Amino acid sequence: MSSPSVQLQELIAPVADGIKRMRETIAHELSEQSPAVREMVEHVGRFQGKQLRAALVLLSGEATSNTTDEHPTIAAVVEMIHLATLVHDDVLDGAEVRRRVACVNHRWDNQTAVLLGDFLYARAFAVSTDLSSRLCSRVLSEATRRICAGEIEQAAGRYDFEATQTRYEWIAGAKTATLYAAACELGARYPGGRDELGAKMRQFGWDLGLAFQIIDDCLDLTATEAEVGKSVGTDVEDGKVTLPVLWTYSRASEAERAAIRDVYTTPGLTDRVSHLRRVCKLDAGVEFARKRADDLIASALESVRTLPPSPARRSLENIASFVLARSW
Amino acid sequence: MSSPSVQLQELIAPVADGIKRMRETIAHELSEQSPAVREMVEHVGRFQGKQLRAALVLLSGEATSNTTDEHPTIAAVVEMIHLATLVHDDVLDGAEVRRRVACVNHRWDNQTAVLLGDFLYARAFAVSTDLSSRLCSRVLSEATRRICAGEIEQAAGRYDFEATQTRYEWIAGAKTATLYAAACELGARYPGGRDELGAKMRQFGWDLGLAFQIIDDCLDLTATEAEVGKSVGTDVEDGKVTLPVLWTYSRASEAERAAIRDVYTTPGLTDRVSHLRRVCKLDAGVEFARKRADDLIASALESVRTLPPSPARRSLENIASFVLARSW
Repeated sequence: MSSPSVQLQELIAPVADGIKRMRETIAHELSEQSPAVREMVEHVGRFQGKQLRAALVLLSGEATSNTTDEHPTIAAVVEMIHLATLVHDDVLDGAEVRRRVACVNHRWDNQTAVLLGDFLYARAFAVSTDLSSRLCSRVLSEATRRICAGEIEQAAGRYDFEATQTRYEWIAGAKTATLYAAACELGARYPGGRDELGAKMRQFGWDLGLAFQIIDDCLDLTATEAEVGKSVGTDVEDGKVTLPVLWTYSRASEAERAAIRDVYTTPGLTDRVSHLRRVCKLDAGVEFARKRADDLIASALESVRTLPPSPARRSLENIASFVLARSW
Repeated sequence: MSSPSVQLQELIAPVADGIKRMRETIAHELSEQSPAVREMVEHVGRFQGKQLRAALVLLSGEATSNTTDEHPTIAAVVEMIHLATLVHDDVLDGAEVRRRVACVNHRWDNQTAVLLGDFLYARAFAVSTDLSSRLCSRVLSEATRRICAGEIEQAAGRYDFEATQTRYEWIAGAKTATLYAAACELGARYPGGRDELGAKMRQFGWDLGLAFQIIDDCLDLTATEAEVGKSVGTDVEDGKVTLPVLWTYSRASEAERAAIRDVYTTPGLTDRVSHLRRVCKLDAGVEFARKRADDLIASALESVRTLPPSPARRSLENIASFVLARSW
């Protein structure tokens, strides 16, 4: 079996040229006179990772026969916003390793990470204002607002073991699915019109992104740092009660519930996930969450079913399946 | 003598209607379904302060006979960006009190402050993309990038006692004067054209903003928390070597220099400013910095000298003088 990155290379083959142009655009737009900024941007460039969101812009354009010269730039803006959220996420999560590269907040400090994230947002918005249609600026500034609102609600709801699945999905969707949805909508709609097709691709992106986040939350409980290339167990550490835990908690006895809360809240406890596994039926919750991700991917596939067959549509379908199978 | 806020009320009288509309726009644009976001936005609203940058947009428009229906919205966007930088600044500075209201990072935590700042940036950009001309989005996304670059350079240059005045002014200008310059340029130029007038008002804003920052740096060394309504002495605490200290250091003996460095770097020292005052001639540095601010204000006044006489021009001139005299 080939490695995930080789698999992903194949999936984005239909838009390889656009991806290359997207990368050139990012490199160009983030080049900066200021030496401290340049050093940090170079560091951050090393954990750009899968650039899945950029690929979705380009593939959604191809699959809906909506390709413009500006699509690679839109893809670059989407990736820069994603990079900004990653840098700020690392502050929020107190994470130390992202994609096997030290996080900005660990290598420098939190303050610098805040500023670098702001810088990336600012560059992204500046680039988007130079595009011929404003649709990109509009969709992405609204998406960014929603991502932040989702993160704020998540922070406000730490240690909330009584949250409903609906609330969990609102938050997980807002913070993650929003940018997937925006990427797919822009790919299919930019520079404008095509509302129905845009809505359909937006739904595809939303379902895909929510499934991605649910799988991410499962991996944080089940994978090792070596497997996923980033810190694991951070959700429990940070008091984030994700879908697998919510489900397990809702079906647990009073004694188990108290034990789960203790694992989250006892100061100084190390390896909280192992403790969690001992005090409750965590695997059943993980299974439930994975089933929910399955259903979302089925819904996503339904959204692209009526598009004419093409290598790009095939890639979108394969990416959807890939998200379910991933262990990164 | 009337209080600063009464004085400022008089200065913005020529654009009182626009200020009212600007405030309504901010309130409207920051209203949010999400309860956690709403609570935080309401809290932050309480330290909106002088709204000087918004007033500069409106007064620059009036003084150059360039008033549009969209000027109050531009003023609102400028204020929202300023508010976002304040919220993130408080994370960076570890500040506890801003305008006598607990800072977001103190009342909630750093994570929440990062997110709220991001939310405010996102709303600001979303509102600017709905304006009829893109000039606002362009000028302000570029301004935001420059503000971040300035802050990053400042963070990278902590404890740099050998920095030149030019470097100090590049950083102080980038982080503070940039938004003043953008506000004045947009007021005079929006929706477009009028390049020469825009450049002149941009220079006015730049000189004013740089003077403002220099005075701010002086007050951090000379004022009390009660006088300025925010934490003082934070620059020394954070290793920021501002113009008064740079000047004093450059003229100090080797023994004094070592003592200055010790005051900045000895762990756990309390009231570092008092110590600093004891080990070097800080007042001479403060005097030099205030003289530099004087010169900048003279240059600012020169930029508006050729505008036709009007209450708005008079206000711009008075604001410039006011910045020098302020003790807040």
